[in-house]
Order: sequence, then C-alpha cells, then structure tokens
Amino acid sequence: MNDAEVARMLDERAIVEVTHRYCAALDGHDWQALERCFTPDAVAVYGGVPGEHDGLDAIKEVCRASLEPLDASQHLVANHLVELAGDTAASRCYVRAQHCRRELPDGENFMIAGTYEDEWLRTADGWRITRRVLAVTWTEGNPMVLARNRREGL
Amino acid sequence: MNDAEVARMLDERAIVEVTHRYCAALDGHDWQALERCFTPDAVAVYGGVPGEHDGLDAIKEVCRASLEPLDASQHLVANHLVELAGDTAASRCYVRAQHCRRELPDGENFMIAGTYEDEWLRTADGWRITRRVLAVTWTEGNPMVLARNRREGL
Amino acid sequence: MNDAEVARMLDERAIVEVTHRYCAALDGHDWQALERCFTPDAVAVYGGVPGEHDGLDAIKEVCRASLEPLDASQHLVANHLVELAGDTAASRCYVRAQHCRRELPDGENFMIAGTYEDEWLRTADGWRITRRVLAVTWTEGNPMVLARNRREGL
Repeated sequence: MNDAEVARMLDERAIVEVTHRYCAALDGHDWQALERCFTPDAVAVYGGVPGEHDGLDAIKEVCRASLEPLDASQHLVANHLVELAGDTAASRCYVRAQHCRRELPDGENFMIAGTYEDEWLRTADGWRITRRVLAVTWTEGNPMVLARNRREGL
Repeated sequence: MNDAEVARMLDERAIVEVTHRYCAALDGHDWQALERCFTPDAVAVYGGVPGEHDGLDAIKEVCRASLEPLDASQHLVANHLVELAGDTAASRCYVRAQHCRRELPDGENFMIAGTYEDEWLRTADGWRITRRVLAVTWTEGNPMVLARNRREGL
Repeated sequence: MNDAEVARMLDERAIVEVTHRYCAALDGHDWQALERCFTPDAVAVYGGVPGEHDGLDAIKEVCRASLEPLDASQHLVANHLVELAGDTAASRCYVRAQHCRRELPDGENFMIAGTYEDEWLRTADGWRITRRVLAVTWTEGNPMVLARNRREGL
C-alpha cells in the first residue's frame, strides 16, 4: 500500500466534498454554509456577472442576489481533476447549473454550463477555496429566468 | 495515515457504487438487480408518482411500469454527500433522469431532475437502501413521454 | 483496514481520472494529451460516426475532425462502474456531451448522451484505455451543429 497515494486520495475526496457542499448551499439558499467552503479573503469570478467578488461577504451576497429570486436551482458538478501541492491545491470540474423560475413565458429553465477553476488552501478546519472562477462554456433555455433578477434590482 | 478516514472513504465509495448500480438497473431494465440495491422492506417515494412504494416488490413494479414502455432512459447522478453513522448512513445526490420515447410529436425527451435523499443499512451483503425519496427540482421537455405510459394503463 | 479494498479504490480512482483527462483533452482541443489516455493500439467506436478507429493516430484524428470546427464542447461523465481483473479492467460510465456552434439557425447546441464502455490495461505509465465504445442513448438539440463539420469536409 502506498501511503502517499492514499493521503492524496483523502485530500481529493475532501476537496470534492467541499464543492458538493458549496452546490448544496447555493441550491438550498444556505448562505451561511458558504463559510465552510471559502477562506474569509477568497475571491470569486462568475462568468456573466461583472467584476470580481472579493471576500466571503461579497461572495455570499452575489450568490444570494442571483439565486434567491428563483424558484429553484441545481448546480451539478462532475469531472473533478485535483492537483495537490502540499497545503495548497488547484482543481477543475465541470458544472451544469440549472436555474428555474416558474410561469415565465418562453420557458422556465436557464442552464449555465462551464468549468469551475479553483485554488485551495488547507486550513485547521479543512480545505477551503481561496479563488473560484466560473468559465462559462455554453448556455441553454430562457435567459430571462436570470434577467428578471436584475430588472428587479437584485 | 488515518485508518478511520480510509474506512469512511471505503464506505462512501460502496454507497455511491450501489446508487450507480441502481441507475444501471433502471436504464438496463434489469429489475432483478434492484435486489442488490434495496433491503427487502425498503420504501421508495418518487416525486410525481403518487404514494409510497413499500417493499422491494413494489419498488421493482413502479420502476418497471414507469420505464419499460420507454425506448431509453438515462439516470445520471452526481454531487454525492454521505453521512455515516456506524451501520447506517444518510446520503443525498443530484439526479438528472432523461426519459426517451421516439417519434412523439412535441419532442422525444423528458428530463426529471432532483435529489435522491436516501437512508442506508450496512448488511452482510453490503450497503443497502432502506428509504429513497426523489425530490423533484425541475423538469424539461415533453411530459407526454411519460404520460403515455399512464394512458396505456402501465 | 482491508489493503485489497484500498488498492482497488486507488485503481478505480486512477481509471476515472484518465477518463476525466480524456474529456479535458477533447474539450480543450489538446489532441496530444490523448496519448496519456489510450494505448498506442487502442480502438475506439463512436456511435454515430461510421467505423472503428484503429490506433491512437486514428482516434486523435476523429476527435480533432469532429470537435475542432466547434466553438465549444463539454463532455460530462458520471456513474462510473469499474470491474478490475488484475492488470486489466472493464468500466462503464455515462456521458452527456454538449457540442456548440454559435450563430446557427435552429439552435447552437447539440447534446449526444450515452455510455462509454471501456477496456483498460495497466501499463508502466498508468492505466490506459485499450478499447472505448460510445453507445448513444439519446440526443437533443440541433444536429446541424455537428452536420456542418461533415459538409465542410472535416
């Protein structure tokens, strides 16, 4: 048995689990749970949303503002690739995020699909994201599902 | 090396594998293979299908009745989160289940997406589902793909 | 701790990682990276593309010819099931491959979904695919996204 390989698998598993908890937090509107996903000074860049979101509070706010007006969302992730480097790591995974708003003309779903490109830090409380970039690859459906949020000032 | 962490990872892996085998059984119309997924007294609740399905035979029957009339289906799962508690466990994962019936007007696909919320028991034969609930999050496509089943008395 | 189970989990993880790297190679147009996915004499059969692709060069070429004309693609995989047999293995996973070409009338996306049915060999450089078959289950969207490639002689 190669202990180093096992240790690497445990780290990968822990990193993937944080991304699963991130998705559950977003789709369950549990913004506080994002504290167990990011470092306090983490930066997030969400393709399609202008600018960088600097620090945990800003990340919580952009997630809340984007998702709270919706009836539902589902951020499905897969194809995780993790590169460990001691107490830091870089990872990539595919995301297909469905956004839903019922009773809209022209369709109630809007899919945003792409890659999460992440940087990680091992902390006393476990692995945390220090930088998350969503690079959008394709979209499908009715963009008004999300556009309505912006019209309403959220 | 932390043996407890490794043991936990092996249990998680075994639980996820049973869900993969469940999906393969459904999409391969291998109803007998469901015996290696559920305990004999398991309960399933499928959002959109009325009632609870009580016991393995009832679960087999609702799966068969829903899926056998189709030309194809594909139950893709991801975002697994497992909470172990000795010989029981609770888990959640996302599912995007595509249902296909060729040559229907208005589209041949109907997607049902949601969360499997599961309870598990460690048995002498491995982990088995004792309770599976499908909470539907969104759908897309032509609902007549599945509605035809019901019209035909299946 | 069961060392054999841990060894099996490490092999499974390594096999799944190669499929993730395969998807990244396809979607990143990094045809050379396919050398770290297949044995030199590997065979690939892609449902919908006529014939078998025999050897790594032929596999590279069919991937390049299919994907290079696109604006984007995203090969998402999940539901991995791996059967190990010493230095060989068989595996299955679900794939949902989105293909995108902007500014087409009738839709810019075409999804091809199915199962990768793979055979593997453990080599000195790690696990490699010796045979990959894509069995198509369903499609959705605008088939002209891919059809245009063929019209243009690619």
